[in-house]
Amino acid sequence: MSFGAATGSAMSLSESSIIEIFHRRFSGDRRGVVLGIGDDAAIMSLPEGCQLVAATDALVEGTHFLPGAPAASVGHRVLAVNLSDLAAMGADAHWATLSLSLPEADDAWVKQFADGFVRLAEEFNVALVGGDTVRGPLSAAVTVMGSVPSDQFVSRAGAREGDDIYLSGAPGCAAAGRGLLAGELRMAEWQADPSQVKASSSRPQAYRRSFEYPQPRLVFGAALRSIATAMIDVSDGVHIDLSRLLGASHVGARAVVPDLGALVADFGPELSRELFFCGGEDYELCFCAPAVSAAEVSRLAAQHAVPVTRIGEVINGAGLNWSQGGHPVKPAGAAFEHFEG
Amino acid sequence: MSFGAATGSAMSLSESSIIEIFHRRFSGDRRGVVLGIGDDAAIMSLPEGCQLVAATDALVEGTHFLPGAPAASVGHRVLAVNLSDLAAMGADAHWATLSLSLPEADDAWVKQFADGFVRLAEEFNVALVGGDTVRGPLSAAVTVMGSVPSDQFVSRAGAREGDDIYLSGAPGCAAAGRGLLAGELRMAEWQADPSQVKASSSRPQAYRRSFEYPQPRLVFGAALRSIATAMIDVSDGVHIDLSRLLGASHVGARAVVPDLGALVADFGPELSRELFFCGGEDYELCFCAPAVSAAEVSRLAAQHAVPVTRIGEVINGAGLNWSQGGHPVKPAGAAFEHFEG
Repeated sequence: MSFGAATGSAMSLSESSIIEIFHRRFSGDRRGVVLGIGDDAAIMSLPEGCQLVAATDALVEGTHFLPGAPAASVGHRVLAVNLSDLAAMGADAHWATLSLSLPEADDAWVKQFADGFVRLAEEFNVALVGGDTVRGPLSAAVTVMGSVPSDQFVSRAGAREGDDIYLSGAPGCAAAGRGLLAGELRMAEWQADPSQVKASSSRPQAYRRSFEYPQPRLVFGAALRSIATAMIDVSDGVHIDLSRLLGASHVGARAVVPDLGALVADFGPELSRELFFCGGEDYELCFCAPAVSAAEVSRLAAQHAVPVTRIGEVINGAGLNWSQGGHPVKPAGAAFEHFEG
Repeated sequence: MSFGAATGSAMSLSESSIIEIFHRRFSGDRRGVVLGIGDDAAIMSLPEGCQLVAATDALVEGTHFLPGAPAASVGHRVLAVNLSDLAAMGADAHWATLSLSLPEADDAWVKQFADGFVRLAEEFNVALVGGDTVRGPLSAAVTVMGSVPSDQFVSRAGAREGDDIYLSGAPGCAAAGRGLLAGELRMAEWQADPSQVKASSSRPQAYRRSFEYPQPRLVFGAALRSIATAMIDVSDGVHIDLSRLLGASHVGARAVVPDLGALVADFGPELSRELFFCGGEDYELCFCAPAVSAAEVSRLAAQHAVPVTRIGEVINGAGLNWSQGGHPVKPAGAAFEHFEG
């Protein structure tokens, strides 16, 4: 119930129809959902012998996405960032709740948001079990719930001396995409309007896709739970997130900046390294495993078609020391404690 | 990670310290929490033989609370409205996640918000297991998770012909408080600044408390699960919420407007009835039970010190017909489908 008569006025898209859009779109089998959207709360059955896993994250216009960002990307990302948190625990995702705040009922925006959200949800068989739409500044908050066989979750705290440190994907590309969209980075071939781009597979558009449509490594994360000793998702940049893992595990590391590929050609050696260290938004997995598991890591990476690079090893003590081409390097940015989360 | 350097600037209250405020304040035993705040996701153990229950709801400044509203009230209410949803399922509450959006880091505001949130969480032994703080317009979204013995939840859909219809508390008072705060209702004794009020137990202040600090009927709701055939919480007003219950159950009802007490003296017969019908925000429980359970309902109400009134009976057919003092009455307001949720 709102304050004042003005905010309670009729709108073209009522709460029930917004929820209905999502509800209708969920065609997959609703795994474990006993009672879904439409009552005071949802009822779900957790798989036997499993613990519940939950994470929450929000995206706010102007902070996490630019005004005018594609609604489908916002819907995709707000779910992806949460699924990535479950991936980093080695968990399976089952259910999500969504709290959507809209300045006005914009049917086209909501439908595209739902497109992005539901497409990703269906890919991982995640059911929307609770929804709340409120009038307010554009933002979306999601809580995802999943399961992991009891006490088989992978925390940040289990890394041990001698463990190898691995990284999935190519961190830095999403931050390059964000920088291009925000006008903070420049490339000759960059066009903010994708309809102006001849080859949609061009590098600038690939960076943009990395930012707008990150792929949570859910299936791979779950596959790693039998061998990973510690894991984190790279949401704030490899340096800060690996540092968090090492801190939680009370160990240090020696690590090598991997081949940054086209990032070096496009942005130069210093900036590409900085994007890798501090860019974030990639939602790749950084994990540790005993040296004896190296072959199994390779096998799982190949099986799940996930590019994985060994970037270093865990050592006793504290601190994270990087090298590149045989020379020590450091992140240039200040400590990366930011308010936005 | 934010767009642009400006939004990434250092603030007096970092994300980790905001979460820390909540974390420190939770002194109760963290029931079933295997791994709490501080990793990518939280891990919890559901009680054996139980299903998971989840609900989500958000409060936005300007829509659900006035600018300048006491932060402790906002913290209390955003948790209370969610706990009330669990109460309406007959569920027990265990865990909550919070996504807090703040335009700037205001230590005093956050501490008072945490006070209101944590006080209520501790009262019901609910642990905060996930937090996310983002920079944006003032709003808070909460997801609560709890449990119910398998298939013993109470939905909206089980009401049967002949069931009695009951209501807890005194719906209408919270909407009176909201109206006074918003300046839409007037009382001679009303002072928006409570320090100006001599007797803090005065009626206007009691209305205000009903709105600012609603008490979710969690323990009573759980006690009802063995006898209630259908249940809903009164968040949007008795008329609309009871209508939803009846619609979900495919039945109708004859109901009597109960004694509205001081509301009639303070706001007159028509307005008091309208507050009862359409006011909302009370978070009382409306439930149905077979006539044979009447004595048990009375016993549970007395045991839990919850005022409960029998307001009608379920009939075959559709529709909700009200009477007052032997005369038929209807809600005066338009259909109460509002966007804000």
